[in-house]
Amino acid sequence: MRVVVALGGNAILARGTEGLASEQRETVRAACEQLVDLVAAGHELVITHGNGPQVGRMLIQQRAAALEVPPMPLDVLDAQTQGQIGYLLTQQLGNALRARGVTRPVVALLTQVVVDPGDPAFDAPDKPVGPHYTETELEFRSQRAEGDQAEHDPLAADRVIDGEAYRKVEGGTWRRVVPSPLPVDVVEIAAVRSLLESGGVAVCGGGGGCPVTRAGGDLGGGGAVIDQEPTAALLARLVDAEALLILTDVDAVLLDYGTDRQRPLEEVTAGDARRLLDDGQFPAGSMGPTVAAAVAVAEAGGRAVITSLARADDALRGAAGTRVVPG
Amino acid sequence: MRVVVALGGNAILARGTEGLASEQRETVRAACEQLVDLVAAGHELVITHGNGPQVGRMLIQQRAAALEVPPMPLDVLDAQTQGQIGYLLTQQLGNALRARGVTRPVVALLTQVVVDPGDPAFDAPDKPVGPHYTETELEFRSQRAEGDQAEHDPLAADRVIDGEAYRKVEGGTWRRVVPSPLPVDVVEIAAVRSLLESGGVAVCGGGGGCPVTRAGGDLGGGGAVIDQEPTAALLARLVDAEALLILTDVDAVLLDYGTDRQRPLEEVTAGDARRLLDDGQFPAGSMGPTVAAAVAVAEAGGRAVITSLARADDALRGAAGTRVVPG
Repeated sequence: MRVVVALGGNAILARGTEGLASEQRETVRAACEQLVDLVAAGHELVITHGNGPQVGRMLIQQRAAALEVPPMPLDVLDAQTQGQIGYLLTQQLGNALRARGVTRPVVALLTQVVVDPGDPAFDAPDKPVGPHYTETELEFRSQRAEGDQAEHDPLAADRVIDGEAYRKVEGGTWRRVVPSPLPVDVVEIAAVRSLLESGGVAVCGGGGGCPVTRAGGDLGGGGAVIDQEPTAALLARLVDAEALLILTDVDAVLLDYGTDRQRPLEEVTAGDARRLLDDGQFPAGSMGPTVAAAVAVAEAGGRAVITSLARADDALRGAAGTRVVPG
Repeated sequence: MRVVVALGGNAILARGTEGLASEQRETVRAACEQLVDLVAAGHELVITHGNGPQVGRMLIQQRAAALEVPPMPLDVLDAQTQGQIGYLLTQQLGNALRARGVTRPVVALLTQVVVDPGDPAFDAPDKPVGPHYTETELEFRSQRAEGDQAEHDPLAADRVIDGEAYRKVEGGTWRRVVPSPLPVDVVEIAAVRSLLESGGVAVCGGGGGCPVTRAGGDLGGGGAVIDQEPTAALLARLVDAEALLILTDVDAVLLDYGTDRQRPLEEVTAGDARRLLDDGQFPAGSMGPTVAAAVAVAEAGGRAVITSLARADDALRGAAGTRVVPG
């Protein structure tokens, strides 16, 4: 079976760890111990992954050294995390495969993902990235910024400094918010397909991929981030995957979460899942994007399964997880 | 002709610029305007590149944010630069090819390069990386470091702090020095070959590649950096390239550099070039590694050409540059 696997961020930088390189390598090693079952079972895998914590850390480093080193924009930072995480994943999955005597190339391909410059997200940046700023820090930055001489409303929840949008978040601190446009194409998709056809495992589209827009024939980088889930759904369609396997913290999606009627959802049609989404069963900050990606795949005629790393193999055999099917 | 192209670091982060992302993109764009001639002429290209300035900047950022974000080791930083530079190169070369109406996939593959844990470089770290430290800064770090209670000789040119070696450099400042072992294999070479065979352009082995060592069947990261030039020579042998094209600042290697007998070297056998190296014609901090890589390729029966970006196409046709040939 050809499967796109979307690894949650905590499969790389585990919650409750400091994020030392040795810890990230160990977390990835443990994830690969599970993924290796899928490869050994003969599935063709495309692996994609989140990068939120890693980009957040790079933004903190960039801020700390801003007087010495020019900061890189978000498309370049995504590329850096594709390198960083792609390295750990290919190394550890390669090790796990060799330990099983399975000889399959595992290769990370740097992935540019095309977005539409007319995507409404560019006019309404709303994805928080990077460090929290206090009111005072933001005021200081605002005063230093050239051309930002206009009076501002101290009660406003949004500010623009040097062309970057900031928003007041829960707790009263501020964070930068950036556009999160939808992915429409993957530049390197032919190479991903070739690698699969030659028996390889492809790691790509990490952190949603480097966002690029087309201007004439040219691609250029965008000051945006792409969500991991819609890129995973797009990859599944572009490689004609038989399933999108979204690996998260839980064995299955829960209905009526947090109430006494809470129960796992085993199988659901795309239509019913869309209605549950619209009813607010899955909040945007929680399972919303995951379920939405699964629905997108099922609406395009594919099959999506949401489960935990530990149940991945069971879930592909229909014995675990939440299956979202066409209909 | 199948050609491995080694791009010097200044083809990405040009001297005299701040290193803004926009400047790096423009510098890479200009380099790709030259490289596109080689692709359009029908050559199969593997492109590799340096990463010294980029890793240096990341080390400065890591130092600045060290209390907030755990620093990543050198193998992971190399992976980050492979992502960063691979992104700029694939994007800009792709643009240049489309502008010429040439449809060829350009893909950056994350590359692990195997080194021998018994390489003598591991016992004698001598490659300077990262920021300069003053005597006072080093003393402060030394006092903070756990287990470093031993008295040290203030006149010593080498110090070890927290397992990291530091050396006093010209000007009286200190820099970290790391092992620079020789590359012996490229883990992803099969995927590089497949990409070439399907008409693609491969970007790989950036910054010499992520240094990894084998322990049993497992690969693990090493606290080392690999020089770009020997990795380029290794790639040329592994993909059976007809030429290694080393692009640098100068149109050709100069003999008796800086004297009134200074003259360009047009063609030289591997044996003669080795003797010139041994005679000290090409210092280690200057053209030494470049000529040594060319000699390594010619000694293995291949052909190497050293020239500037602007003369790359001419050089492959034998009309420019310094050619190092077997013999």
